[in-house]
Amino acid sequence: MAATDAPAGSRAVGIDIGGTKMLGVVVDPADPTTVLAEERVPTPLGPAALVDGIAALVDVLDAGGSGPVGLGIPGLIDSGDVFRFGANLPGVIDLAVGDVVGDRLGRPVAADNDATCATYAEFHGGAGAGYADGVLLTLGTGIGGGLVIGGRVRHGANGFAGEPGHMLIDPAGPPCPCGRRGCWERYASGSGLGRLGRDAALAGRVEAAVALAGGDPEAVRGEHVVAAVRAGDDAAAIVLDEFVWWVAAGIANLVDLLDPEVVVLGGGVIEAEDVLLPRIEGATPDHVLARGHRPAVPIVAAHFGERAGAIGAAVLAVGSDQGT
Amino acid sequence: MAATDAPAGSRAVGIDIGGTKMLGVVVDPADPTTVLAEERVPTPLGPAALVDGIAALVDVLDAGGSGPVGLGIPGLIDSGDVFRFGANLPGVIDLAVGDVVGDRLGRPVAADNDATCATYAEFHGGAGAGYADGVLLTLGTGIGGGLVIGGRVRHGANGFAGEPGHMLIDPAGPPCPCGRRGCWERYASGSGLGRLGRDAALAGRVEAAVALAGGDPEAVRGEHVVAAVRAGDDAAAIVLDEFVWWVAAGIANLVDLLDPEVVVLGGGVIEAEDVLLPRIEGATPDHVLARGHRPAVPIVAAHFGERAGAIGAAVLAVGSDQGT
Repeated sequence: MAATDAPAGSRAVGIDIGGTKMLGVVVDPADPTTVLAEERVPTPLGPAALVDGIAALVDVLDAGGSGPVGLGIPGLIDSGDVFRFGANLPGVIDLAVGDVVGDRLGRPVAADNDATCATYAEFHGGAGAGYADGVLLTLGTGIGGGLVIGGRVRHGANGFAGEPGHMLIDPAGPPCPCGRRGCWERYASGSGLGRLGRDAALAGRVEAAVALAGGDPEAVRGEHVVAAVRAGDDAAAIVLDEFVWWVAAGIANLVDLLDPEVVVLGGGVIEAEDVLLPRIEGATPDHVLARGHRPAVPIVAAHFGERAGAIGAAVLAVGSDQGT
Repeated sequence: MAATDAPAGSRAVGIDIGGTKMLGVVVDPADPTTVLAEERVPTPLGPAALVDGIAALVDVLDAGGSGPVGLGIPGLIDSGDVFRFGANLPGVIDLAVGDVVGDRLGRPVAADNDATCATYAEFHGGAGAGYADGVLLTLGTGIGGGLVIGGRVRHGANGFAGEPGHMLIDPAGPPCPCGRRGCWERYASGSGLGRLGRDAALAGRVEAAVALAGGDPEAVRGEHVVAAVRAGDDAAAIVLDEFVWWVAAGIANLVDLLDPEVVVLGGGVIEAEDVLLPRIEGATPDHVLARGHRPAVPIVAAHFGERAGAIGAAVLAVGSDQGT
């Protein structure tokens, strides 16, 4: 996660590598949160194809360039920019992605966890700008995270800090792909909202969401619950409040532990900011220790939306992450 | 939590204020982890009596002295050394304890959370010395904590960071004095071990522990379970393993989030270090995300035992906490 050594004046590239697609952006190193160009491509399967795909995407975005490249990757990236493991990149294990892509491109390359990259973006020039202590959470398929403590994004002993999604929050909860059960992201991610919605649908509780899903209770996803809430359906609002209970309980665990100045929420779920954020801000203090004796923590939506990871990878590439 | 401005050569005092007793120590500011003298007195009830008691204890320990005094207090202490709230000091709320005791004694006074003080001690010259990223946990009546990140003890936005005891870990769990239910300390504290022991005793599962408790299942406490395990009782070992499951699950939540180099365990429970530590070290990796792709975190017993809070308060008083 060391900053790259960028030649002056050259453009920088940031790539957010997801389980299914990669989003690349080009930026001016002097202003890395302003996107000059962007490109989306499918994520290739397996380590060799992944490296090929990254190199091809950089060439599409910035052919002939020599500026720094940042990579945001879903999983555990160690302090030497080696990708150790991530459930969404099957077959890619212990890949020295920083070195391999750097050698391939002949450009300086830095790599970090995708949610940590989003944290660079949001605390450099987004919703977390100006805060010295904060938490970023991405609520998507799972839950990613990044920690800003004492004005710096923190990585811990191995580079793996900021993984709240697998906090045990319910020993009787559903099984998790990680091999355990009752992890926070089984409830408080986009997938978690979908599961709560389907459970309610199968129990006959959310007809409006089922109708939006084409009449099949098993086809209900989070967006159907959200759409039904927006349309004024009370039953769907009960399901959304149940989801918010889990989101708030987990955020409160982090507030008790870290006492942040701000919590920034990103990820696909936060496209429903209008119905979600007021509920989450309202519910979280109920779960925080000694609520009557401390200020409520501001909970805000990420500024850069789905581009946060790619922009943050560019921020990392140009070394601006040091001053978040 | 600012360091006090200690006159050169004068001795420093550290006081750990517990719910039932106060432990004070006197140290040489040049070597604040070596105790020169100590004294225990009951904790007076209510804010006025508490201030009187602290002043009297300082006079007993260091009559006529002018050196700095540090106070470790169970609860939320804000950045201005104001005690906001703590369940174990009923009636004491929003007490500007640093200023009030300082004015009373005419000595510089600094205050911080008791487990945070233990963290100063352990990471300054105890079991955490030399680590830049670590977590301290005190497993006693409840669970206290302290965070060392990037070489500094971290306090968060208001001074309240490091309270892992009330992490929600089981929504169906027993009620907690904090007003919620299923907090980690309901399971993984000394009280938690006692509760698990009594549950097993009432179910007829731990006869050896019941015998040690005088034959009354409802009188079983954690130390009876530990004594039975030490005597080789298999049924008691099952209860202890159940306790360890909860301890390990919560430690893993912190490891996922913070990726520490070391976890230091203190508090009364760790007097059973011999039977507990190997079990906790063995069980924790099972709960950590991606265990096969990361090193196991060392889990060690606190060095200063029951004096850690008082010694750490003295470390805080002389300002040595800045370099932990």
